[in-house]
Amino acid sequence: MPDRSLIFPAAEYRGRVAALQAEMAKDRLDALLLTTPADVFYVTGFLTRFWESPARPWFVIVPAQGGPIAVIPAIGADLMHRTWTPEIRTWDAPDPVDDGVTLLADTLHEVVPERGRIGIPMGLETHLRMPLADYHQVVARLGSRQVVDGTSAVQRVREVKSEAEIDKIRATCQIADRVFARVPEFARAGTPLDQVFRDFQIALLSEGADWVSYTAGGAGQGGYGDVISPADTRPLQPGDILMLDTGAVREGYFCDFDRNYAVGDPGDVARRAHAALYAATDVALNTLRPGMTAQDLHRILTASLSAEGAVPGGGRLGHGLGLTLTEWPSLTAKDTTPLREGMVLTLEPGVEIAPGLIMVHEENIVLRADGPELLSRRAPADLPRLGV
Amino acid sequence: MPDRSLIFPAAEYRGRVAALQAEMAKDRLDALLLTTPADVFYVTGFLTRFWESPARPWFVIVPAQGGPIAVIPAIGADLMHRTWTPEIRTWDAPDPVDDGVTLLADTLHEVVPERGRIGIPMGLETHLRMPLADYHQVVARLGSRQVVDGTSAVQRVREVKSEAEIDKIRATCQIADRVFARVPEFARAGTPLDQVFRDFQIALLSEGADWVSYTAGGAGQGGYGDVISPADTRPLQPGDILMLDTGAVREGYFCDFDRNYAVGDPGDVARRAHAALYAATDVALNTLRPGMTAQDLHRILTASLSAEGAVPGGGRLGHGLGLTLTEWPSLTAKDTTPLREGMVLTLEPGVEIAPGLIMVHEENIVLRADGPELLSRRAPADLPRLGV
Repeated sequence: MPDRSLIFPAAEYRGRVAALQAEMAKDRLDALLLTTPADVFYVTGFLTRFWESPARPWFVIVPAQGGPIAVIPAIGADLMHRTWTPEIRTWDAPDPVDDGVTLLADTLHEVVPERGRIGIPMGLETHLRMPLADYHQVVARLGSRQVVDGTSAVQRVREVKSEAEIDKIRATCQIADRVFARVPEFARAGTPLDQVFRDFQIALLSEGADWVSYTAGGAGQGGYGDVISPADTRPLQPGDILMLDTGAVREGYFCDFDRNYAVGDPGDVARRAHAALYAATDVALNTLRPGMTAQDLHRILTASLSAEGAVPGGGRLGHGLGLTLTEWPSLTAKDTTPLREGMVLTLEPGVEIAPGLIMVHEENIVLRADGPELLSRRAPADLPRLGV
Repeated sequence: MPDRSLIFPAAEYRGRVAALQAEMAKDRLDALLLTTPADVFYVTGFLTRFWESPARPWFVIVPAQGGPIAVIPAIGADLMHRTWTPEIRTWDAPDPVDDGVTLLADTLHEVVPERGRIGIPMGLETHLRMPLADYHQVVARLGSRQVVDGTSAVQRVREVKSEAEIDKIRATCQIADRVFARVPEFARAGTPLDQVFRDFQIALLSEGADWVSYTAGGAGQGGYGDVISPADTRPLQPGDILMLDTGAVREGYFCDFDRNYAVGDPGDVARRAHAALYAATDVALNTLRPGMTAQDLHRILTASLSAEGAVPGGGRLGHGLGLTLTEWPSLTAKDTTPLREGMVLTLEPGVEIAPGLIMVHEENIVLRADGPELLSRRAPADLPRLGV
């Protein structure tokens, strides 16, 4: 991998900013104010794990015309200067008296005219990554300038991936593909689940992940109870279904899919559950087209599961994917987001096998004009078996 | 490791809530509203990597009396029920129409009297992890109830660690200790830096980390340019100084320290820089006492570096540590936070060797009545050498 400050050529970032500015024009925004790792990386190429420290806020302003302006802690200046970002202003953070508030407010005064509109992502799946009290202070200094919801401008642009982005996500998916194929090497009856989780992460790194931001899973007789718990020390047992799920990252882009394994014979109930999940995914792969909505796709998946005699799980059955582990839209009964060509999505049907016992199944796709293209290697139709 | 929903006995969490309620009483708060992974874990024991998904907000309310109330997406109910949390309310998230707003507002109405005060952390190092528009909606529904800054109540309690917490942080530090000793096994002249970063993470997992939330470092002739960049593919060269820094996690608790290595002979300039960093750390280890402030400790470190003929780096020279990679206070010239017995801190002096060339050095300590107790194994006084 090259210098991470050059993950994409500058033209990629210029295109993103132009696309954002076109959306901003529709919403009559004079600037966008961005604060999260994904939004900042998207616009500038600034990629660092330093966001793990909550100590400092970071700001990028996208004006109606011209390049982005980074208003950031001095500790990030060296790295930001290696990106294409044309203008960088810094302060010594953390500063308990004025942690960038004056610098940010002054910059907004320069960039945004009187009575201008500043868009901030504030809708579903967003948050403002800065202290709330400082945000209030900045707003109080804006005079006649107005803060409005900038969610739509950001989401309509970010949700459609460029071919360069799709290549990155595919590369990350391929890392996970290789690792899922190797799971029988380190998981079998008797292996404690927490050891499986560690070896799974080690394998992801060995196969080329830069880091592993997310690992989850579960294991239990014929299914599992939930999909977000950390691993416990319980050893795998014959009859267990093991599920492993990962959000590995390479060059800033995530994969997010899972695989199920049977420890020995899965039994008929688990076998049928897996078959239903597999069949529902096939239906979605064969019928999904641009122009459908997130709720259409949810309906396709739930109808297919029901047709297979399975009980569809509650909650969403997939979501967007890219710069974060999950992105909008959500495949729920209520999400009306149109699914567009170039969107990268997860198909994640789940079934309830019994009260408190579930099974899930996930693939990553990019939506093309003629339907989904798999980014993950299609799961085996039959549950792979681990040694007993 | 046991079931992660039982990282501490319930008494630990009860004690935390009682301590929060004592601080809340001083600030006349009728409730605290918490939204971040660390705050939620602190109060409930709810530990999951699922926070990596920005899709859903999570809320915990600490009332003036009684146990905490979790107001969370249904997907987390199973895991939250395995914690001690006495009351759990859920909704099906993400919901584009009402993503927990009504449930949260209704719960606050029940818990907080008319004209009552709801504290939300909104000061330095905090953020509100929920969509800003939803926050505005909740506030609009509070009637005569008032939202005020709850930062102090949370920080004064969380900053002093219990012995049980100190044990967890020490255990994580010991994992990193073992890995830093093994670095010469996988890093030498010719090894690309990104391969070093991968092997470093693999070793942390092998030695017992549950996951590795942060890895950073740098390598260059006689020093490095910054400490937050991702690794590039440049192979290590004789004369390089390699720095590796990690925030590994075990049972929810971080370590955060770094180590320097010389590829072959470090040269006199780097040797002197390292000696100055080592000496300044020694002075802090010998003189720091409870009752000093963060700025006092900053002054001790900068004065020691200057006395050694080194140029102290800008920015902070250490910080709190525990449930996140970095916590308040910050060892800066401006931070007046009193350093108290039981605080876990990093000592992180840095020097500027030449324009654009720095070296840093970090240890983790817990502040005892009679001074610092090391949680990391003291770095070698002389730069360890890697093979050429």
